[in-house]
Amino acid sequence: MKTDSGTIDVGAFDFECGEEIPNLRVAYESYGEFDGDNAVLVCHALTGSQNVAGYGSETTGQARAWWNDIVGPGKAVDTNDYFVVCANVPGSCYGTSGPPSGGPDGEPYGTDFPPVTVGDWTRSQRLLLDELGVGRLHAVVGGSVGGMNALDWAKRYPDDVRRVASVAAAPRLDPQCLALDAIARRAITTDPNWNGGDYYDTSGEGGEGDESRNPSDGAQGPTNGLALARQLGHVMYLSKSSMEQKFGRRAAGRDATRDAFPTDPAASFFPYRDVESYLDYQAEKFVERFDANSYLYLTRAMDDYDLSEGYEDDTRAVAAYEGEALLMSFTGDWHFTTEQSEALAESFRDAEVPVAHHVVESDHGHDAFLVEPEKVGPPLRDFLDSGVSGRAIHDTDEEEEVDDGQQFAPVHNSLFSG
Amino acid sequence: MKTDSGTIDVGAFDFECGEEIPNLRVAYESYGEFDGDNAVLVCHALTGSQNVAGYGSETTGQARAWWNDIVGPGKAVDTNDYFVVCANVPGSCYGTSGPPSGGPDGEPYGTDFPPVTVGDWTRSQRLLLDELGVGRLHAVVGGSVGGMNALDWAKRYPDDVRRVASVAAAPRLDPQCLALDAIARRAITTDPNWNGGDYYDTSGEGGEGDESRNPSDGAQGPTNGLALARQLGHVMYLSKSSMEQKFGRRAAGRDATRDAFPTDPAASFFPYRDVESYLDYQAEKFVERFDANSYLYLTRAMDDYDLSEGYEDDTRAVAAYEGEALLMSFTGDWHFTTEQSEALAESFRDAEVPVAHHVVESDHGHDAFLVEPEKVGPPLRDFLDSGVSGRAIHDTDEEEEVDDGQQFAPVHNSLFSG
Repeated sequence: MKTDSGTIDVGAFDFECGEEIPNLRVAYESYGEFDGDNAVLVCHALTGSQNVAGYGSETTGQARAWWNDIVGPGKAVDTNDYFVVCANVPGSCYGTSGPPSGGPDGEPYGTDFPPVTVGDWTRSQRLLLDELGVGRLHAVVGGSVGGMNALDWAKRYPDDVRRVASVAAAPRLDPQCLALDAIARRAITTDPNWNGGDYYDTSGEGGEGDESRNPSDGAQGPTNGLALARQLGHVMYLSKSSMEQKFGRRAAGRDATRDAFPTDPAASFFPYRDVESYLDYQAEKFVERFDANSYLYLTRAMDDYDLSEGYEDDTRAVAAYEGEALLMSFTGDWHFTTEQSEALAESFRDAEVPVAHHVVESDHGHDAFLVEPEKVGPPLRDFLDSGVSGRAIHDTDEEEEVDDGQQFAPVHNSLFSG
Repeated sequence: MKTDSGTIDVGAFDFECGEEIPNLRVAYESYGEFDGDNAVLVCHALTGSQNVAGYGSETTGQARAWWNDIVGPGKAVDTNDYFVVCANVPGSCYGTSGPPSGGPDGEPYGTDFPPVTVGDWTRSQRLLLDELGVGRLHAVVGGSVGGMNALDWAKRYPDDVRRVASVAAAPRLDPQCLALDAIARRAITTDPNWNGGDYYDTSGEGGEGDESRNPSDGAQGPTNGLALARQLGHVMYLSKSSMEQKFGRRAAGRDATRDAFPTDPAASFFPYRDVESYLDYQAEKFVERFDANSYLYLTRAMDDYDLSEGYEDDTRAVAAYEGEALLMSFTGDWHFTTEQSEALAESFRDAEVPVAHHVVESDHGHDAFLVEPEKVGPPLRDFLDSGVSGRAIHDTDEEEEVDDGQQFAPVHNSLFSG
């Protein structure tokens, strides 16, 4: 398989907020060969990277090869057939311009970097694809906030894409998730080491046009706050029942050490539980690979995203879209719910856009889109190949007809029951 | 109505952890007159106080009169009929001994205070009631972790109480809630102002046997961390749909100021939302009234509680209980779920303890037990007066018979849908 990995400077970039930077650098990877009509853009999730399929970059930690089970030769997004492109979004920290990357003066932007929106991500991807010689896309596929990014393509460039697959996403976040994201940001900004966003150690580095800082150089800045933010994220990505199955109330094994965080003396009387040990481990890994300011910027972009913005409602926002849409949701996902996807499917239907809402029965919570490739792959493959009439795709609309008045999906009595 | 408010020194106290303090002081309030057979102990929730019904203490902030709609003359827990006692639990900060109260050397205990358990709370209440001349209780009633406290009475002193009402509680916390509590504690212990638990300003105060410090003297210590912990708590107390109704994605009003927390410059581009403004306001109030070390201690007690501890299962843990039990749960509550209560009801049934599981249809989340007195009051009143056969009580077991195979309760398709 032909692969490519690199950065492209797309020049001066006007952000939706009205601010501008003199040069936007976009880090990307591509897999497979472009035949003029087979480009598939994959949009990454909040803390993901351009390294969707495990080639190229070695510096992205857990963000490395994040959809390796889905994208590759012979896989659901088959790089033998498609030219797959994935780009790191503006505001992130994997090579595309963002708070930790060098600004015009050679110093990291920090919080001088303009606020970013999902719309800015889409526009940066359009510019990158122009540079790569890709006009109309066969498809845009994205998961989580990457699924919002995919929806934004249908709205912003309705003629530029034939098929949009939005996986485990929604047209906007609900207030419960907004609240948790706000708490996560506050954990970062109240960490004294955040220091107003100015925490980069620039000794021995810098210089105009410097490569984006590599987070794997070591944790710096508000690591405690960022760790807390990540732990909150993990709770949002799991369902109550997946946590029950994965951890229960078990104490962590003998070799688990309680050293990730300071703790109160009373703690020694109580067990250090599996679930805490897991969260601590995940947090420790995360602060080594991700930038705290980027976390602030990207969660703000996610929270702000509203498909209907500029339109009366979601239906009108997608009315100009000329392609087909696949929405995939997961019954145990409380970050982006099946109900949200169904409401969006109705909007597509009302707009007479061919759409399928494929509901996956899963206890894995939001993480399902990453950890259940055997359920995600087949409908995605068939959608790319055949559109909404793909064989492995079950649309809630069809089920309604079959079940005659039954609920649209095999929804659990409670997403949160064991 | 006769009311009483004060503290009683119950002497040396051995905690379940094996540590001891030379004197445990218990702050309590009582309402109504004791006739030898009409005592009702009310157990408060995590950050509650002895001030259940709005008389006595003025220093408890939001913890003041926390169940004023339920307890009082002519109310569901009728103080014309019952002698109602509520005591602040060990480890808390409303007058009962805990981290912020003065130890033998006159200095605040801080984290030298022994780790506390729900069992310690129950035992301290038994000692207090002995001092008040109350032997057998007519009833113990508690909500949230106070409901765990009530369950502990049935297990620990099975002959001492005639009726136990456990409202919005469970025999143990699930791992999702354990995770969120652990994150909340880490927000406190990673705040540099926590300083290992040593943050009390003792200037101009102290002296042996000093009154417990009054949190309303002003916020001190790890206020940022405690604020985050409280915000997480609030998300746990609300349901997805109650947040949708209460806040939506609305921006906060013109007069809302974003000054509770430091914020990133990019924030100014994005709306300050109602939901954030609410959380900030709640957090600001909370840090004025509650002690951070107490928050660590009490959440550890809650997380640790397991009704079945020392027994093979819940059924055997309650088998010796000679009274009746009312479990009340709320369909929108994901902190303590209806499913958890139903499983516990089954355990009581298996143990041949007369039990009713009354499910309240409510979108208000865990908060329902506080904010829907019109739904909580009638079954509680009838249970106190007539036991499980009380008229306003609907038991899931009866419903099963009526509905013939239907789900036990009118559970929503998803607790988290709009």
